[in-house]
Amino acid sequence: MSIAPGDTIGILGGGQLGRMLALAAARLGLKAHIFAPEADSPAFDVTPLQTQAAYNDREALARFASQVAVVTYEFENIPAATATLLTNWRPVFPTADALAVTQDRLSEKAFVGSLGIATAPYVGVDDAGSLARAVAQIGRPAILKTRRFGYDGKGQAFIREGSDLGSAFRSLGAAPCILEGVVPFVREISVVAARGQDGSFAAYDVCANEHVQHVLSRCAVPASLSPDTAGQALEIARCIATKLQYVGILAVEMFVVDDPRVGPLVNEIAPRVHNSAHWTIDGAATSQFEQHIRAICGWPLGSTRRHGSIEMRNLLGEEVSQWRDLLSREGACVHLYGKREVRPGRKMGHVTVVGTENPPVETSGSGQN
Amino acid sequence: MSIAPGDTIGILGGGQLGRMLALAAARLGLKAHIFAPEADSPAFDVTPLQTQAAYNDREALARFASQVAVVTYEFENIPAATATLLTNWRPVFPTADALAVTQDRLSEKAFVGSLGIATAPYVGVDDAGSLARAVAQIGRPAILKTRRFGYDGKGQAFIREGSDLGSAFRSLGAAPCILEGVVPFVREISVVAARGQDGSFAAYDVCANEHVQHVLSRCAVPASLSPDTAGQALEIARCIATKLQYVGILAVEMFVVDDPRVGPLVNEIAPRVHNSAHWTIDGAATSQFEQHIRAICGWPLGSTRRHGSIEMRNLLGEEVSQWRDLLSREGACVHLYGKREVRPGRKMGHVTVVGTENPPVETSGSGQN
Repeated sequence: MSIAPGDTIGILGGGQLGRMLALAAARLGLKAHIFAPEADSPAFDVTPLQTQAAYNDREALARFASQVAVVTYEFENIPAATATLLTNWRPVFPTADALAVTQDRLSEKAFVGSLGIATAPYVGVDDAGSLARAVAQIGRPAILKTRRFGYDGKGQAFIREGSDLGSAFRSLGAAPCILEGVVPFVREISVVAARGQDGSFAAYDVCANEHVQHVLSRCAVPASLSPDTAGQALEIARCIATKLQYVGILAVEMFVVDDPRVGPLVNEIAPRVHNSAHWTIDGAATSQFEQHIRAICGWPLGSTRRHGSIEMRNLLGEEVSQWRDLLSREGACVHLYGKREVRPGRKMGHVTVVGTENPPVETSGSGQN
Repeated sequence: MSIAPGDTIGILGGGQLGRMLALAAARLGLKAHIFAPEADSPAFDVTPLQTQAAYNDREALARFASQVAVVTYEFENIPAATATLLTNWRPVFPTADALAVTQDRLSEKAFVGSLGIATAPYVGVDDAGSLARAVAQIGRPAILKTRRFGYDGKGQAFIREGSDLGSAFRSLGAAPCILEGVVPFVREISVVAARGQDGSFAAYDVCANEHVQHVLSRCAVPASLSPDTAGQALEIARCIATKLQYVGILAVEMFVVDDPRVGPLVNEIAPRVHNSAHWTIDGAATSQFEQHIRAICGWPLGSTRRHGSIEMRNLLGEEVSQWRDLLSREGACVHLYGKREVRPGRKMGHVTVVGTENPPVETSGSGQN
């Protein structure tokens, strides 16, 4: 089925990512229907087409599917069964298969490893006993993470010398976990890229990311990497997208270590639009949100050309109260997500500054220190 | 009353301008309430807050006002009485006074003339008899225009040698008119600028406009003017905005003639966001839509910095059927307005290309030929 302007995109999830996807759909003459469980979903503010229901509400999902031409989602923690069910009625992109691989840290790491791409060392952990064996294998320090439903540092426990393993495991609800070795990285980067239904591929320039208490705080493009490392990072993203037969935007988070013989290590794949590419709204010819919509509609991908050097900062929690001051800063592109409640560390908005320099190419040779 | 993120902007008019205003409001964490008479208004697709009612429906207007923090409009042809009525309940920007001056071609020309700014020669025409006297004064060719409710060449009749004056006047419904002399212009330009509630002023670079059958077809920035002419054009816009005590985006359309002793002549003032600045969505640090929202909210104006050289083309009527081809053009930013019905000459979308050159300054000295 061919999708045309005037058709309706179905979006699971009503947060800021769903909201910005809906705004991008509107630019292209498409309607957006938001499906989300929470009454105060920010994305409900930008379209009259909305369903407030649980992700396992089969009747609501069937009605939703009947009213849209294609389905996508703003985050990877929707139940895989929901995506599978919807696939009976409408195309779902990224596919339920891609979602299944990437929403489970263990299957994701195994998939990445099967491509010959490096990750941190890891072991699956199903109970307190297997955690002890995993720690013996990986060593300390290490990070225990739930296999599913983690984001922004949620569902993680740091295993130090002397940490009690039983209480660490119980602190994560005794859920199936993965133990990861700690990578002594010098830089966290991400590649955000799109793959079209025709196999076309378009990546944005590599982004350098800084986290504060596990939440993304700041992004910079270019990422000050050696051309080799930047090229390797882009190839890793291309390989993953190709092998997943992926359709839409995906983000691959990677660690860069201080050893020129070791390429970037994949930390995580996000099967969705990603915070580290919010700068593309103001700083690229095509935003990641529009690019995602183009891909899931089977439309041509747009140019990923950058307008200049980029700095993007998240507005976390009370930082959003500075909105008026931020609006008056020269060249600051301010985005606010319309969230009713300010909570510590909550993503309330972001600010992008596009530098006046010519778009720099990845040239600096000493980027890994 | 101070307006903050989370508040609701009321927008009269549901066309593409209202739609793009609502999308810009959403970026800033604001809600938008669209008031429009037509059920198939494109702006209804981008917000759940909407009123479908006539502009003289007092009850609907009162309810609308009670649900918004500030009122604006997407076009100058809403009844002045509507703006005046709403002003009783909520701030309305641009003000009803600014609207009254600019929605009547005769009062607009008189206002511009009172500032010492040149226009085409003109005479008011109230009946067939005064039309004959006006033609004797202005000469032929001339253009007869209704004083109110004209746009995109609607409400205009060209008076050539031999044209029958009575039938020309009747063709415009025998409405109050203005007869304008034809200006032998070499270029049509516009200045789109914002004035804030604090008197701050920020103009985008001068845009060169090409019309086809009275409808804007193409815009280019820079406009290839001499620095003198560009500076005069910007000063004209600043003077008009200041004298109107204007708040919001306004567009001043001007003619440039082939005589260096004559500055730009004002053709028309549009008290609203304007087609000739649609390029600012993709090509400037702050879009005209966001700038308008900032101004009417009493927020700081944003940077008008341009990302590069600009070409914007409207998609008129059936041209929109090329959308898929346009999406595949390198660097083309495609905007579609979600209009259900394609009609000849109807504005269905636009395409902006931002050139990779550095933002050029207005330097070329031979622009007036």
